[in-house]
Amino acid sequence: MSDAWLDAVKWNADGLVPAVAQDANTGKLLMQAWMNREALAATAREGRAVYYSRSRKKLWRKGEESGHVQTIREIRLDCDNDAVLLLVEQQGGIACHTGHERCFYQRLEGERWIDVEPVLKSQAEIYGAKK
Amino acid sequence: MSDAWLDAVKWNADGLVPAVAQDANTGKLLMQAWMNREALAATAREGRAVYYSRSRKKLWRKGEESGHVQTIREIRLDCDNDAVLLLVEQQGGIACHTGHERCFYQRLEGERWIDVEPVLKSQAEIYGAKK
Repeated sequence: MSDAWLDAVKWNADGLVPAVAQDANTGKLLMQAWMNREALAATAREGRAVYYSRSRKKLWRKGEESGHVQTIREIRLDCDNDAVLLLVEQQGGIACHTGHERCFYQRLEGERWIDVEPVLKSQAEIYGAKK
Repeated sequence: MSDAWLDAVKWNADGLVPAVAQDANTGKLLMQAWMNREALAATAREGRAVYYSRSRKKLWRKGEESGHVQTIREIRLDCDNDAVLLLVEQQGGIACHTGHERCFYQRLEGERWIDVEPVLKSQAEIYGAKK
């Protein structure tokens, strides 16, 4: 197995690249997160989005607690090899830990960020007694 | 004028946040870049995408050389306030300096990144004698 495709990625000083997930069916941009080399390799190998959690300092298999797994349709890299785009099928129709369909639910209106999308499920419903 | 909406953004240690631009008409994700506070303020004020160039260490008014201006339809912020999404109208139909429609033209196939989208215009055509 060659790792040349992983070597091609321009990891930053912390060994990370920004990664965004787009819903392959609706086209909506779901979330932005980070990947290290191991996360990107796991994403390709397992066919599900695996990110690197900077706060927990470990791999984060999206949906491991919530069930909101992101199944990979395509993995893309940008022109200067330092940003990743995932096209995904969003299991459960919810990408955000807040229970919104996606993380980008705040829109700038004048000089205020306004929540413009509904919460589809409460965090208690998503995570049960865990959170 | 209140700057509270700018204070709400969680800028990283370098004073930046990742920003992605999505074509408001086609839904395609065009590119990923970076913004500092000044870039985001200018983007909102001028109604066109303004990024921060980490290599040139200055504001970069997208399209200032190429004419490929990104006109703003919406500015969005994610759930933890550390990533920005722009919905834009891409002038000239080309977002990437390589002449591709967008920067995310490399797709992972097996263990190789493959260019899967055409170059629409040469760099000579875009930038003239300048590059």
